[in-house]
Amino acid sequence: MSGKEMILELLSQMQGGSRTALARLISLIEREEEVLAYLPSDISHEPSYLLGVTGAPGAGKSTLTDRLIEFYRGCDEEIAVLAIDPTSPFSGGAILGDRVRMQSHALDPKVFIRSMATRGSLGGLSVAVPAAVRLLDSAGFDKVIVETVGVGQVEVDIVSSADTTLVVVNPLWGDSIQANKAGLLEIADVFVINKADREGVRQTRKDLEGMLDLSEPKPWRPKIIETVALDNKGVDRVAEAVLEHKGYLWSSGELALKRRRRAIEEFERSTKRLLERYIMKHESFSVIKERVAHGDLEPAQAAKMIVDEVLGSS
Amino acid sequence: MSGKEMILELLSQMQGGSRTALARLISLIEREEEVLAYLPSDISHEPSYLLGVTGAPGAGKSTLTDRLIEFYRGCDEEIAVLAIDPTSPFSGGAILGDRVRMQSHALDPKVFIRSMATRGSLGGLSVAVPAAVRLLDSAGFDKVIVETVGVGQVEVDIVSSADTTLVVVNPLWGDSIQANKAGLLEIADVFVINKADREGVRQTRKDLEGMLDLSEPKPWRPKIIETVALDNKGVDRVAEAVLEHKGYLWSSGELALKRRRRAIEEFERSTKRLLERYIMKHESFSVIKERVAHGDLEPAQAAKMIVDEVLGSS
Repeated sequence: MSGKEMILELLSQMQGGSRTALARLISLIEREEEVLAYLPSDISHEPSYLLGVTGAPGAGKSTLTDRLIEFYRGCDEEIAVLAIDPTSPFSGGAILGDRVRMQSHALDPKVFIRSMATRGSLGGLSVAVPAAVRLLDSAGFDKVIVETVGVGQVEVDIVSSADTTLVVVNPLWGDSIQANKAGLLEIADVFVINKADREGVRQTRKDLEGMLDLSEPKPWRPKIIETVALDNKGVDRVAEAVLEHKGYLWSSGELALKRRRRAIEEFERSTKRLLERYIMKHESFSVIKERVAHGDLEPAQAAKMIVDEVLGSS
Repeated sequence: MSGKEMILELLSQMQGGSRTALARLISLIEREEEVLAYLPSDISHEPSYLLGVTGAPGAGKSTLTDRLIEFYRGCDEEIAVLAIDPTSPFSGGAILGDRVRMQSHALDPKVFIRSMATRGSLGGLSVAVPAAVRLLDSAGFDKVIVETVGVGQVEVDIVSSADTTLVVVNPLWGDSIQANKAGLLEIADVFVINKADREGVRQTRKDLEGMLDLSEPKPWRPKIIETVALDNKGVDRVAEAVLEHKGYLWSSGELALKRRRRAIEEFERSTKRLLERYIMKHESFSVIKERVAHGDLEPAQAAKMIVDEVLGSS
């Protein structure tokens, strides 16, 4: 079977509900195989609702996600979770401990959970995650939850393309993510103060309200919800806030805009990817690269040479 | 004057020592103008030594950098500093407060300090910073210092391509950068425990030594230096550690390798950049993009269409 035939076969199995096929397709996406190019264009079902969950390490993102899965399963929704592991770009090691909790759903065929890790290449995730989201969308999940630690530009970018973004903080969160506060404020649609049985909840709420008051007013003012995810407290109110935000997105036309924007971004990313591959396989590429490595050619000049050669004859 | 003529004129002024020309060229690089393609290939002077300085916000990076400038000026070296501002990818606002301190060197013609900020586009900095470094290199500075907050993949990537990377921590640094510890450990050539007049220095040194003992042994074991940058204490020993590391890089052949790698990366980046530009200006691009936006085409399929069209005829 050719690569293309295999992917078409896996896609058809995935549409038929096979989780094994889905998992294999995501692995192919991680290895930068072209998968999405074979997706049928005429998907009849509603697009998945994309939920982003972010926050500092230890804030309780995984527990909250776990409880949200439970909640949405209670509404008979099919749920997919992509857990983005904050790994060192160097060691490649993933912090998987937290995910173990979500394994309570491992036997539920209507829940699909997958970790994705940074594997070296800068921006690898910023390509693979949106592609995986698109795949899950076409697989027909009602909700796709992307959970990620809210540091770094790449991760913020991933989460901010969600339909609704939950930012999970803790009472007296202050110092540890000080540097990121402004960034989080701008991507949050719902703030979740988790571990709200601890001291400092009121102060934290006051801080958040203060920050919101000071920031530029937008048509949607982020909700602030208190939870104790571990005891399943307040999780229904998080789901309610998500629903309310969805309603706002729908009625304002922003939901359609967001989906349009995601499609265009996917198009541009895929285009770049294909171009890169094409040129790196070009016979002159390695020759010119060698000359750069030996210091015979200024890198930017060499780039112009190879691009002119590839495009010049067209 | 055409764009090309202007850049050639600015480059020639820059080689003649004009800081104004240099500053304008960096602005052009930030606006993604092709500058490096016009660099002369036959630069006769030694390449600049590239020093990365990273660490959590408030660790004292700017103060340390300021003192290092002072130290190297005492050795009659010419120094350039690129200060990467941790801005929200959304607000675009830069945190410039810290830089003010470095203004003590503003009147020294042998010191060049420039802030570069994230302006929206993901990965914008990961292209602009290495390009600016290359430019400064060709301008003949003895040292180029890149200072950045050590969060995020993009920033780690920028700093880790340096010849020597200083990671600035504080006594009892523990919690605030917990998530990043492993990453910092892998990029650090020299750990600087700044604010070493505070409590907890011995514990912090012990922690670092412990982490180093546990990590995979490498031919260069990172030095740990204590400083009080504000009082100019220990800064000479940082410079000494940098020199020692440089000696190691030189004798092991790693310095040549690092420079080779940087040149190749610059070549690959420039190549991608040029291709992207070419295709995005192509007449079919906007037509196909419109169809993607309207949901008529699956984004990845659309990408294949445009790439085939542009490259197919070659």
